[in-house]
Amino acid sequence: MSAFGSRAEDLDRDDPLADFREAFALPEGVIYLDGNSLGPPPLAALEDLNEAAHEAWGQGLVRSWNTAGWIDAPTRLGDRLAGLIGADPGEVIVADSTSVNLFKLLVAALQARPERTVVLSEPGDFPTDLYMAQGAVRTLGGGRRLDLREPEDLEAALGPDTAVLLLGHVHYKSGRVRDMAGLTARAQAAGALVLWDLSHSGGVLPVELNACNVDLAVGCTYKYLSGGPGAPAYLFVAKRHQDSLISPLGGWMGHAQPFAFEDGYAPAEGIRRFACGTPPILSLTGLEAGAALALRAGPARLAAKARALGDLFIEVIEAGPAAAALSLASPRDSGERGGQVSFRHPQAYAIVQALIARGVIGDFRAPDICRFGFSPLFLSFAEVEAAAEMLGEVVAERVYEDPAYSVRTAVT
Amino acid sequence: MSAFGSRAEDLDRDDPLADFREAFALPEGVIYLDGNSLGPPPLAALEDLNEAAHEAWGQGLVRSWNTAGWIDAPTRLGDRLAGLIGADPGEVIVADSTSVNLFKLLVAALQARPERTVVLSEPGDFPTDLYMAQGAVRTLGGGRRLDLREPEDLEAALGPDTAVLLLGHVHYKSGRVRDMAGLTARAQAAGALVLWDLSHSGGVLPVELNACNVDLAVGCTYKYLSGGPGAPAYLFVAKRHQDSLISPLGGWMGHAQPFAFEDGYAPAEGIRRFACGTPPILSLTGLEAGAALALRAGPARLAAKARALGDLFIEVIEAGPAAAALSLASPRDSGERGGQVSFRHPQAYAIVQALIARGVIGDFRAPDICRFGFSPLFLSFAEVEAAAEMLGEVVAERVYEDPAYSVRTAVT
Repeated sequence: MSAFGSRAEDLDRDDPLADFREAFALPEGVIYLDGNSLGPPPLAALEDLNEAAHEAWGQGLVRSWNTAGWIDAPTRLGDRLAGLIGADPGEVIVADSTSVNLFKLLVAALQARPERTVVLSEPGDFPTDLYMAQGAVRTLGGGRRLDLREPEDLEAALGPDTAVLLLGHVHYKSGRVRDMAGLTARAQAAGALVLWDLSHSGGVLPVELNACNVDLAVGCTYKYLSGGPGAPAYLFVAKRHQDSLISPLGGWMGHAQPFAFEDGYAPAEGIRRFACGTPPILSLTGLEAGAALALRAGPARLAAKARALGDLFIEVIEAGPAAAALSLASPRDSGERGGQVSFRHPQAYAIVQALIARGVIGDFRAPDICRFGFSPLFLSFAEVEAAAEMLGEVVAERVYEDPAYSVRTAVT
Repeated sequence: MSAFGSRAEDLDRDDPLADFREAFALPEGVIYLDGNSLGPPPLAALEDLNEAAHEAWGQGLVRSWNTAGWIDAPTRLGDRLAGLIGADPGEVIVADSTSVNLFKLLVAALQARPERTVVLSEPGDFPTDLYMAQGAVRTLGGGRRLDLREPEDLEAALGPDTAVLLLGHVHYKSGRVRDMAGLTARAQAAGALVLWDLSHSGGVLPVELNACNVDLAVGCTYKYLSGGPGAPAYLFVAKRHQDSLISPLGGWMGHAQPFAFEDGYAPAEGIRRFACGTPPILSLTGLEAGAALALRAGPARLAAKARALGDLFIEVIEAGPAAAALSLASPRDSGERGGQVSFRHPQAYAIVQALIARGVIGDFRAPDICRFGFSPLFLSFAEVEAAAEMLGEVVAERVYEDPAYSVRTAVT
């Protein structure tokens, strides 16, 4: 038994979320520290998907748009997610990908601030956020541009040209949490709108969009929410903006009367105007169960456990044989961290491959990050301790030097 | 036995596609004439979905992006669909919805013809096509506009202002087929690019994109291709345009190096630059089997049977008791028709509801269209004959006057 053994046992015994583990399908022999990239399937999601395919699609056929509730799934799921991110019903819709939703909201926001030209963000934020901002300013033209400033320079850069401040709530590499309330207030004081990407916070941290007076947000559902690979994303538009913002992607599902088949676009009332085309029902179905589980656990308990798991992981690494070789790339204070912990090492890629070969699945982020996610719904403290010991061993014994672990086949 | 009984029997006996019926899951007691709205599941799709959920998602977890081929699914499926629409490998990708793909290609095309301001289309074409065009010109600004002209006036409207001619290959209400080769040539002679929507032709008619020198196309996969409800759409960009067109929605999956996580957007080589966010894998998985079945049957045999089914339906209606009450809203010449036949009647909505209650599923399109799709992979001539006789009876006996059939609950 390791030095931390009894501590992990104690933590597991006192874990109020311990029973949620039984709600998930997970392979034998794996410690899964990548639920922040792709959450595992809830058993109920597998049942829902089976029913959606065999019964709703196969037996109901086209009638299921009405009888199986497909047509309302984007807003029904949106209302459910609203409860996880501090939004009200009618402020969230599930649709398209995070990338597409970013474009919709960035263009709508830029058009709502026509005299302002700048989308402000930070270098090294999740790439698709920056790419979609580049696409939005390129498409709208008129001198609009994306301005990237280091975190410490962001506030000073807010000014009369700033149309939108675009930031990730939790940084995808470091896990650092942004001050949502403070940055939102300062951006709004400068006359800008704020767009938060909740991909790495929704479903694992308390998010208080309305309490922070946030204007706009997007988020991913296949990470902590376990919606399934590539499950559709969500977007939030505060009620006060819903009448004035127009989606550039105003498709038929966002029309005031989708089945009147009129030639002219007229945006739907409310959040539904941010829908676009026909929603991918099977991928939406996979999200029902994960969203319900996260709601039942509650953001406060999710965050407390995720952070405690991360703290234990850091402690075990730093008390172990690889302490000197690995440098912490995440905030040490768990209150400043999301559900993940990253360490830097020049051989990060090979280290992650060596861990995967031993059943500990984390992920690599270029150039030198080993990233580990601590999904609180299915991980135990004992697993996290064992994973940290395995990482220590792989690094201290230079297991990663085996050339097999350097072959770059992996893409995610 | 009806007057057409032996004819339908003969046609079924000689049907080279008869065996494909066994490849589909269909409910008992239903004649499904709405495969042009939502195709039924191939049995193999149900198996694929089960495997994708339990094995690839549940056991493979995040590793399945590599080991289950998820990352390549959009281009692998695109190459498969290319064989159905006269495109070459590397010219088609499966991504997003038809609506989103329309926006990508319209904006890219408008930016490639900066001195031209008009998207030309026709009134009454599928609404989302027109809505997305309205969104594209609204977003780009610069005096750009959507100009709608009646079919007989379209050619005369092509001129030095026309940037893009946008048309549905087969009209969603009438089933009328457009002259793809002729209209493409005339639009290009006027200096415009052409964008075809193949939603109602791909997988049921021979489509010859490259033989017709088409520039751009989009299409839907949940109709004749049986990809499942809201399955992702496809888009085609001719090889000659791939280097010069830039998607406004350049997300990380369309980046030259998605996993280098660079701040600056650099479009991928080839068709992959038109991908955007993370693809909805479960919804993509549902498409594998339907696309394979359509390829195996082949567009020529699919079209021949679909048209013969439609001819039989028209014949039975017009020889029956409702001949005078129903007016054909589709071309009589099957060579000018896609896989569907529509009839007009002032009580079209209630007629369709009465038919559904009797197990014949077609659909209503406002204001007065009863639309019937003749998917050639799973329908028999005997079923189509029986459905036509049922329609004749519902109309001739005024079954539709039952108030139960006028309640507007259905949305599709």
